[in-house]
Amino acid sequence: MIGGGIGAFIGDAHRRASRICNDFELVGGVFDVDYEKSKQFAKKEGIAADRCYKSVDALIKAEKALPADKRMQAVSIVTPNALHYPFAKALLNAGFHLVCEKPMTMTVKEAVELEKLVEKTKLTFALTHTYTGYPMVRQMRDIIASGALGTIQRIDAQYYQGWINSIIHGTGSRITGVWRLDPKHAGASSCMGDIGVHAFNLIEYTTGIEIKEVLSDLNPVKDGIKLDLDGTVLVRFNKKLKGVIRASQVCGGEENNLTIAVYGSKASLKWGQENPNYLTMLSDTEPTKVFKPAHGYNDKFAESSHTMPPGHPEGIYEALANIYKGTAKSIRKEKFTPGEFPTVHDGVRGMKFIHAVVESNKGGNKWVKL
Amino acid sequence: MIGGGIGAFIGDAHRRASRICNDFELVGGVFDVDYEKSKQFAKKEGIAADRCYKSVDALIKAEKALPADKRMQAVSIVTPNALHYPFAKALLNAGFHLVCEKPMTMTVKEAVELEKLVEKTKLTFALTHTYTGYPMVRQMRDIIASGALGTIQRIDAQYYQGWINSIIHGTGSRITGVWRLDPKHAGASSCMGDIGVHAFNLIEYTTGIEIKEVLSDLNPVKDGIKLDLDGTVLVRFNKKLKGVIRASQVCGGEENNLTIAVYGSKASLKWGQENPNYLTMLSDTEPTKVFKPAHGYNDKFAESSHTMPPGHPEGIYEALANIYKGTAKSIRKEKFTPGEFPTVHDGVRGMKFIHAVVESNKGGNKWVKL
Amino acid sequence: MIGGGIGAFIGDAHRRASRICNDFELVGGVFDVDYEKSKQFAKKEGIAADRCYKSVDALIKAEKALPADKRMQAVSIVTPNALHYPFAKALLNAGFHLVCEKPMTMTVKEAVELEKLVEKTKLTFALTHTYTGYPMVRQMRDIIASGALGTIQRIDAQYYQGWINSIIHGTGSRITGVWRLDPKHAGASSCMGDIGVHAFNLIEYTTGIEIKEVLSDLNPVKDGIKLDLDGTVLVRFNKKLKGVIRASQVCGGEENNLTIAVYGSKASLKWGQENPNYLTMLSDTEPTKVFKPAHGYNDKFAESSHTMPPGHPEGIYEALANIYKGTAKSIRKEKFTPGEFPTVHDGVRGMKFIHAVVESNKGGNKWVKL
Amino acid sequence: MIGGGIGAFIGDAHRRASRICNDFELVGGVFDVDYEKSKQFAKKEGIAADRCYKSVDALIKAEKALPADKRMQAVSIVTPNALHYPFAKALLNAGFHLVCEKPMTMTVKEAVELEKLVEKTKLTFALTHTYTGYPMVRQMRDIIASGALGTIQRIDAQYYQGWINSIIHGTGSRITGVWRLDPKHAGASSCMGDIGVHAFNLIEYTTGIEIKEVLSDLNPVKDGIKLDLDGTVLVRFNKKLKGVIRASQVCGGEENNLTIAVYGSKASLKWGQENPNYLTMLSDTEPTKVFKPAHGYNDKFAESSHTMPPGHPEGIYEALANIYKGTAKSIRKEKFTPGEFPTVHDGVRGMKFIHAVVESNKGGNKWVKL
Repeated sequence: MIGGGIGAFIGDAHRRASRICNDFELVGGVFDVDYEKSKQFAKKEGIAADRCYKSVDALIKAEKALPADKRMQAVSIVTPNALHYPFAKALLNAGFHLVCEKPMTMTVKEAVELEKLVEKTKLTFALTHTYTGYPMVRQMRDIIASGALGTIQRIDAQYYQGWINSIIHGTGSRITGVWRLDPKHAGASSCMGDIGVHAFNLIEYTTGIEIKEVLSDLNPVKDGIKLDLDGTVLVRFNKKLKGVIRASQVCGGEENNLTIAVYGSKASLKWGQENPNYLTMLSDTEPTKVFKPAHGYNDKFAESSHTMPPGHPEGIYEALANIYKGTAKSIRKEKFTPGEFPTVHDGVRGMKFIHAVVESNKGGNKWVKL
Repeated sequence: MIGGGIGAFIGDAHRRASRICNDFELVGGVFDVDYEKSKQFAKKEGIAADRCYKSVDALIKAEKALPADKRMQAVSIVTPNALHYPFAKALLNAGFHLVCEKPMTMTVKEAVELEKLVEKTKLTFALTHTYTGYPMVRQMRDIIASGALGTIQRIDAQYYQGWINSIIHGTGSRITGVWRLDPKHAGASSCMGDIGVHAFNLIEYTTGIEIKEVLSDLNPVKDGIKLDLDGTVLVRFNKKLKGVIRASQVCGGEENNLTIAVYGSKASLKWGQENPNYLTMLSDTEPTKVFKPAHGYNDKFAESSHTMPPGHPEGIYEALANIYKGTAKSIRKEKFTPGEFPTVHDGVRGMKFIHAVVESNKGGNKWVKL
Repeated sequence: MIGGGIGAFIGDAHRRASRICNDFELVGGVFDVDYEKSKQFAKKEGIAADRCYKSVDALIKAEKALPADKRMQAVSIVTPNALHYPFAKALLNAGFHLVCEKPMTMTVKEAVELEKLVEKTKLTFALTHTYTGYPMVRQMRDIIASGALGTIQRIDAQYYQGWINSIIHGTGSRITGVWRLDPKHAGASSCMGDIGVHAFNLIEYTTGIEIKEVLSDLNPVKDGIKLDLDGTVLVRFNKKLKGVIRASQVCGGEENNLTIAVYGSKASLKWGQENPNYLTMLSDTEPTKVFKPAHGYNDKFAESSHTMPPGHPEGIYEALANIYKGTAKSIRKEKFTPGEFPTVHDGVRGMKFIHAVVESNKGGNKWVKL
Repeated sequence: MIGGGIGAFIGDAHRRASRICNDFELVGGVFDVDYEKSKQFAKKEGIAADRCYKSVDALIKAEKALPADKRMQAVSIVTPNALHYPFAKALLNAGFHLVCEKPMTMTVKEAVELEKLVEKTKLTFALTHTYTGYPMVRQMRDIIASGALGTIQRIDAQYYQGWINSIIHGTGSRITGVWRLDPKHAGASSCMGDIGVHAFNLIEYTTGIEIKEVLSDLNPVKDGIKLDLDGTVLVRFNKKLKGVIRASQVCGGEENNLTIAVYGSKASLKWGQENPNYLTMLSDTEPTKVFKPAHGYNDKFAESSHTMPPGHPEGIYEALANIYKGTAKSIRKEKFTPGEFPTVHDGVRGMKFIHAVVESNKGGNKWVKL
C-alpha cells in the first residue's frame, strides 16, 4: 500500500475491505511521506519493519529482490490525486498489479498512457469506483442489459454532499480534505473530479452507454475558491437520448447522496447509495417493484456480490465486528463501555425470557414472572 | 472456532467480523463434526493442519500444552443451540475466553450455571446479540439513559421474518435451518428462541429496564410442527409500563424486520434493523428528528462504533471488498465477470469526463465532446 | 346534522366530505346543545333559520311536516358517543337515513337493537369507519378476496397516537377531547373505543375474516385515569390463525399511525394510513410490489374510489381549495397573506420562463435572460 | 366556469376544490364548445339552464344584465392553453374576477398585457399553481424567509412524469391530453409549458429569489414530435447562486414527481409533491428534522392552510366522501359494492369488540369470545 497511514480514512477502508474479501494480506508499503510516521503505522498494524519502505522506488527494488512466492503481488495506491500517476507508472513498469484510487490521474494524457501500459504489461489494474461493487448496482446493470427498460429516454444522476461547508463556512466538524481545494493536489476540478466522476462512471457502468458530449456550468460558490464546488452537466448520449449529472459539495446536510435514475420506454430503474439494498423499478402499467439482495429473482452476478440472507444490511458485519472489538478489549483488560458486548448475564436473561414465554403459552396464556 | 465449517452462514459472519475489527486471528478449531470436512475447511482457510482438531476436548488439551503466547486465547462457539452449553462449560473451565452464539443454552438452569462459571473464572464471555453493535442502537441507549424521553409509557418490539415458509410450504429458496424446527437441537422454542429473544434483548439493552412478567400466545401455524413459528408476548415492566413483543417466522416476504419503539411522555424513539443508520425521535411539540451515524451530535460510544463518514452505509466496505475480490480473481487469472472491478479504461473515461466538464465551463458553457 | 357546530372538528370533516362527493346538501340540524350557538353556526353556514332546531325531537316533528321533496332525507350524527344511540333510534323510527360516527353505541345491547331497527325499517345506516374509504384499502380487500395471499398466517394491526399526552402531561397543544377520558360520555373504553375499534374494523374489512376471541391487557397509564389509554389485544381467528391489535393514545409524537399487515403463505400485504396511497405486497420469491391509485392494475372498486391521476395525492384538492380560498378573500377585499394565491404576475414570470427556455434550446443551448 | 365539461379532469378538480373551501357556488358557464354537451353537463350539475351559455360573449352580456347580487362574480378558465388569453381579456374587461389555469397565455406579450389589465381593473386574478397551496410549501417559504438556511448555495427542482409514454409508445392507459403535443393548442412547449413552469414557480414562490438567466437542452425524444417532452434547464439567480430545473413527460413510471431542494450554508430544505405532508430540513450539525402539518412549530400561514389534526392526510376527506357517496347510492336505491360504506352490522361488531376487550382485561387477561 502506498499512502493510507495514520488518520487516513480511505486507506483504512481499503484495508478493511481487503480483509473482508480475504484474498489479500497487507505485507508492506510506504504509508506516509514521513518515514517515522510510516514506521509507527507499520508497527501498529503488525507489519514487518523491513517491509515498511522509505519510498516507492525503495519498495520496488526490495520487493523485486525477494523470491516470487514471498514478493508483494499487488499494490494499493491511496495517496492524494497528484501522486497516482507517477506511482502507478513506476509500479506497473516494475510488474506489480495495482488497485488505484480515483481520479486515476491529473490529465487525460496521463490516463491514456496508463491504459496503454496496462495493455502492454497485461497486469491487473483496478480503479476503486467502489459503488459498482454494490449488489443492486450490479443487478441494475443486468436488468438494463436484458433490454427490460425498452428504449432508454432519459438518464439522471446526482451526487450531492455538504461536507465542504464545514471548510468554507466553518460549520460542521470535518476539517480534513482541504487539499481538495488546491489545484496542485486535486487537479482540474474539486466537485466533478472527486464525486461527479462517480456519477459519470455509474451511468456508463449500469447502462453500458457512453456519454458523447457534455455542457457544464460549474460554481466555485465563494470568492477565493479556485475550483468548482458545485455544478450541473448536461450530457448527450446520442441524438435522442439526453441526461444530466448534478454534483455538489455544498448541499448542506446532504451526506453522500449519490443517485441514478434510468428511464426507458417500458420501465425505469432508480437506485440510491444511502440505501443501497433497494433497487426500484417503475412502470406505467405495473405496480412499482423493489429488488433487494439475497433473492432468487436477482442475476447471478448480483447475488455473488452479497453474502448475507435477506434483510441483513451488510453493515451487520460491522455491528458484529463491534461486538468482537468490545470482547477483545475485555480480554486484553482494556477499559470498555458497558454494553460494548453482550455478556453471560444477557444470556441468562434471554433464557429466562424464552422459557417464561413457552410456559405462559402452555399454561393457557397466563402471566409468568421472569 | 467451534462449528462454522463449509456452508455455515453464521460462522462465516463471525470470521468476517473478526477480520474487520482486526483484533483476532483465526488459528484453529473444530469446524465440523465430520473431521474430514473440518480439515478441508481448515486447508481452505489457510489454518495449520495440526490446529484443526477432532473434538473440543482434543482442542483444549493441545492448546493448553502450547506456550502462553502461541496458545489460542478466545474461542467462538457457532454450533447448533444444543451444543452451546457443554462446549462453553468445558472451554471456560479450561480458561478460554468465549464468543457464543445465542440462545446461550437450552435451559435457564444451564444459563445460570454458565453465569456463575464466568464470575468465578473472570473470563470474558460475549453473547452475539449482534444488533447491539449498531451505532444507532447505542445512540438510542444513550438518549434513553439521558432521560430525554421523560417517563416511558409503552414499549413495542417486533421481529418478523418469513423464511420458514420456504420450509413448511416449499416457497422461497432457503432450505437450510430445518434443525430449528426440531426441539432436540433448537430447544423449547423456534421463533421466540431464535428471534423473539433478540427483540427482548434489544428492549433491555436500549432502555435498561427489565421485563418482569410475560403472557404469551404462540402459534405452530401448521399441523405437525412441534415448536412455535409465530407468537405475541404481552410484557410488563412495572405497574404502569406495559408493552408487547411480536415475533414470527411465517410473515411471508418479511426479511429481517426487527424494530423497536420506545414511547415516553416527552419524546419517543424508533429504530429498525433493515435501515440501521436511521434513529427517529418523535415528539408532540417539535419536528421529527432523524439521527444518523458520523455526526457530532451523537454520543461518543455510538460514534466510536462507526468508521465511515456520513451517508456511507457500512455495507460500502463489502462493496469495496467486491472490487478487491474481482481484482484478486484477475490477478490469479481466474474467470471473472466484466464489471467485477473498474479497469484502467474506466479511469481514462473518467479523466476525459472531468476535463471535458471543466473545458465546457471555461468556454462559456459550450458542448464539448468526450 | 346533529352536533358538529362551531369548533367541532369531526362535524366539519363530514360537511367537507359531503360537499366533495356532491350528493348531499346541508339543509338543517341541531348543531349545538346551546340553541344560541346552534343558530350562530347555522347563520354562518347559510342554513335557513327555521331549519336550525332546538332538539332532535323538534327536528323530527318539523321535517316530517314538510312535503317529501323538501324534507331532510338523511341525518349525520356527530355528537359525543353517549348520544349516538338515543338519537339514532329516534331518527330511524322517524324514517331518516343515517350517517353515524363511531363507536355506534355505548353497549352491545344498544348496538344489536339498532341493527334490528335498520333491518326492520330498511333505511340506510352508514357508520363512519372512514379508513375503509381509502382506495388502497379497497384494493387490499380485493387482493385478499382473490386468494393471492394463500393461507393467511398472521394479522397485525396497530393504531398509535400520542395526543392524549397533551391532556395528561400538559405537553403538546391539543386540549379538546377531554370528554374521551370520562366513562359517562365515552363509554367503557377510551383507547380501544376510539381507535382500537378502527384497527379491528380494518382487519375484518380487508380480510373478510371474523375475530373469534380476544385477550387484552389495557393500561390507564397514569393514576386517576379511569379508562384505558393504551393496550394490546391478542386476537384469534381460528385454530391456526392468530394476530394482535395494538392501540395507544400515549405514544408521544405518533400522529395517526394506523397500520395493518396481513401475512399469507404466498404473499403479504401492508398498508398505513399516514401514506394511504401506498399498498405494499411482500413475497418470498418476487420483488416487493407497491400498488398506487389511478392505475389499470387495480380493481374496479378501488379505482372508482379515486379521482385524481397517478401521483396526485387527494390532498391536492385541499391545496387547490386553498388557492380558491385566497382568491375569495381577495375578491371580498379581505386581508390575505401574500402567496395565498398565484397572481397574474406569476403568470408573466411563467411565460417568460417558458419562452426563454425554448429560445435557449433553439439558439444552440445559449444563456437567455428572463 | 369556461370549459371543464363532461370528462374534463381539471374542471372537476376546480369544482371540488371550490366546494371544499366553501366560498364559491357554481352558478353558470360555457362548459363545452359543443352547446348540447354543455347543456347536458349543466343539467347533471343542477345548474339553471338559462345560465348555461353558448359563448363567453353571451355569458358576459347576460350576466352583466343581472342585478349585482345575482350576478356571477368570478369565472374559472379551464380550457386548453390557447383560449386562456382571449377569454381572460374579455372577462377582465367586463369586470369579472378570474381563476385561470396555467400556462396563463401563449406568449410573453399576451401575459404582460393581462398583467397591465389586472392592474388597471383592480380585479382579482388567480393562476392555479396549485402546489403553492400545500401547507408544507407555505411552511418552506416561511422558513426560507426567516433566513434559517443562511446563504442559499444551490437550488434543484424536478418535475418528472411518464404519462406521455402512453401516447407516444402506446403503453399505459392514458390517452387524453394529445392536444398537448400540438403547438397550436399547447403553445411553444409541451414539457416545460405544462410542468417545467410549475417547478420554476415553486422555486420563486418558496425562495422569493428570481431566476435571471436560463440555458436549456430540450428533447422531443421521438421523430415526428414537434414539442419538447423532456429537458434540463440550467438556471442562474446571481453570480454565486446557480441551480437546475429538470422536467420530463417520458420518465416511464414516474407519476407526478415534483420535488424541490434549496441548499443553504446553514441548513437545507427538501419537499416532494407525492408525499406533500413532509418537509425535510437537513443540516451539517443537527439531526435531520421533518416538519409536518398541524403542529404548533409551524408558521401561522402554513397552519391556516390545513384543517385536519396531525397524521391525517387531507385525502382523508375523500375517503370520508367515498363513504358518503356509497351512502347516497344506498339511499337512492342504486347498486353499490359491498364495502362502499360501513353498515350497522359493522357497528355491532365494533361494540362487541370493545366490550370483549374491556371484559378480558377486567377478568385478569382472559380469553373472551366475541
